[in-house]
Amino acid sequence: MNQESTILPWSGPTLLLDRQKCQANIRRMADKAARNGILFRPHFKTHQSVKVGRWFRDAGVECITVSSVAMARYFAAAGWKDITLAFPVNLFEIKELLALSASIRLNLTVTDESAVSFLDRSGIRCGIFIEIDAGHHRTGLDSTNLHEVGQIIRLLTESGSLEFSGFLSHFGNTYATRSTGEVREVFRDSMACLRSLQEAFPGSGIIPVSIGDTPSCSILDDLRQVSEIRPGNFVFYDVMQYLLGSCTAEDIAVCLAAPVVFNDPGRLEAVVHGGAVHLSKDRVVHRGTEIFGMVVKLTNEGWSLPLEGCFVRSLSQEHGVLQLTGETFSLFHPGEVAGILPVHACLTVSAMRRYLTLDGEWISCMDPLTA
Amino acid sequence: MNQESTILPWSGPTLLLDRQKCQANIRRMADKAARNGILFRPHFKTHQSVKVGRWFRDAGVECITVSSVAMARYFAAAGWKDITLAFPVNLFEIKELLALSASIRLNLTVTDESAVSFLDRSGIRCGIFIEIDAGHHRTGLDSTNLHEVGQIIRLLTESGSLEFSGFLSHFGNTYATRSTGEVREVFRDSMACLRSLQEAFPGSGIIPVSIGDTPSCSILDDLRQVSEIRPGNFVFYDVMQYLLGSCTAEDIAVCLAAPVVFNDPGRLEAVVHGGAVHLSKDRVVHRGTEIFGMVVKLTNEGWSLPLEGCFVRSLSQEHGVLQLTGETFSLFHPGEVAGILPVHACLTVSAMRRYLTLDGEWISCMDPLTA
Repeated sequence: MNQESTILPWSGPTLLLDRQKCQANIRRMADKAARNGILFRPHFKTHQSVKVGRWFRDAGVECITVSSVAMARYFAAAGWKDITLAFPVNLFEIKELLALSASIRLNLTVTDESAVSFLDRSGIRCGIFIEIDAGHHRTGLDSTNLHEVGQIIRLLTESGSLEFSGFLSHFGNTYATRSTGEVREVFRDSMACLRSLQEAFPGSGIIPVSIGDTPSCSILDDLRQVSEIRPGNFVFYDVMQYLLGSCTAEDIAVCLAAPVVFNDPGRLEAVVHGGAVHLSKDRVVHRGTEIFGMVVKLTNEGWSLPLEGCFVRSLSQEHGVLQLTGETFSLFHPGEVAGILPVHACLTVSAMRRYLTLDGEWISCMDPLTA
Repeated sequence: MNQESTILPWSGPTLLLDRQKCQANIRRMADKAARNGILFRPHFKTHQSVKVGRWFRDAGVECITVSSVAMARYFAAAGWKDITLAFPVNLFEIKELLALSASIRLNLTVTDESAVSFLDRSGIRCGIFIEIDAGHHRTGLDSTNLHEVGQIIRLLTESGSLEFSGFLSHFGNTYATRSTGEVREVFRDSMACLRSLQEAFPGSGIIPVSIGDTPSCSILDDLRQVSEIRPGNFVFYDVMQYLLGSCTAEDIAVCLAAPVVFNDPGRLEAVVHGGAVHLSKDRVVHRGTEIFGMVVKLTNEGWSLPLEGCFVRSLSQEHGVLQLTGETFSLFHPGEVAGILPVHACLTVSAMRRYLTLDGEWISCMDPLTA
């Protein structure tokens, strides 16, 4: 047992959080929004934590985004008063939405007239975004569907309780790109769709536009065409964002500490306690190989840069298999603790539900079963 | 809103459990073990629930398997007295293991001499399995490594507190097969490795052998060559097992009920609230396409068989995108509730952490943060 590599007292898989890196990520994005003169409405689905939320408040943030009613309730209870639920409204949840709207400024997202009529009849007082599909093809009305968009705007204008907040879009297709140049192209094409839509409805002023993905918000400098940005992942970043060019490897602010329990010198592999129930099974192709995380060495100050040629090769429920090299194999004997940078931090956080900061503080996340 | 499709009162993604199917799966495996005259030591990592555990006790089960110390603690607190931790021992957890071993019969798994020496010095009283790699190449000593196996057996024989329980192996490579015939081949080859090892150490009797995967235990009828079986997934089965031939589609005992929040007639797609944080991102290739679940229609009695040509095409954090057909598109309008059979039930359960039975009972699972 080499106790030197255990920077803090713990015994099982633990999600380490580098507060300095995280706060620097928050400041950088807040500064960019300020420079562009637009609203910064960060998505809190990545960190899911009241405590990390306070670091945003310290950076001047007052309006936030969430992806579920449970998350809205959790942050409303912590004092957040202006929350957008950036997910197509689930009308089965009308009772919960009515309760929320009574205590905070709530913004909902719709994609069809019948949902607007239903919400109007319910008497709920809230803002309504129309979700626009600007090329991602997951949810949202096609940006050329002027008829349906017009009908919804008309219903909203006539409503006494619903207020039209603008167009909301998620350029999720930036995640399928392979370079920052391609991210810029997706952003340009998607913005062109949204601008045409704005021009089609001149009305009494320019309709606000809310966009959200971390790649666009990290890579583009000029965001003056939009009214607000809703990135979430940037608070921690991860391997996927690093490979996309949204951040440097140094910016990644979370790392799974996972005890090594087995190794095989013939295969140059080590197995850690740190599997799919800790990291999630999201993966990314790197140099032709599907990987589930990058491997780092834990240090007294946090963790190293990703070790060249080392990655998480496969995950089962509790096992993580690390592919190592001749140079790194000896760093990961049983009794050592490996560090793993997650492929998708949002899902890792959702699986782990708490962090340990490098200065030894446990930070808890929302429990969706009790929120 | 079509209330007919909501079989029970709920508003968000919910993991439905068909108790009859589940209990039939348990009985079938218990009967098979009894017919073979071998011990049935089911793996409880799939259901992670004290309540479902009681259904095993009703079927005569007294010895169980788990994959983490937290899980061992959770089931020990519920009265289980004989627990195997089928994961290479993590020596950082020695304090927790000592506490457990004081109240139950604990079996640990080792792959090297130094772990045995460490455990011996700790004074822990427990059974020790030597994990053997019989072809899966994840963890375990190679079955031809007679020197190391012999050294460990010698250390165990000399120990006053550790007891040699036998060889433990997981034929996880059955999951990479594409037919029941191939599963039989993997089983035959892996068993040949274990039998050679038994013959190499004749000692005072035949060394017991514990094996575990659901495909082998479901597909093979004759299991008399082993001493005990440790399958886990069979309690619910899932799409992966169905496609492997371990079960029929009717045997799958869990289904995610997910509200439809969007659809697109052009793409024949519907989007549900039911994403990676509910299903997990495990996937399987079916007819040349990577799928994240099969789509069923919820009924008053539970759910239908998988709908032909329908599947979960992609998952993001909270969204699930269903690929539908011209015939099925109208079943999944917003306001309806879709059913999704998970690709990997163990990970879905771990993400959802509770079930709703078809007769309306909420059943909770272990919370790893408090277990």
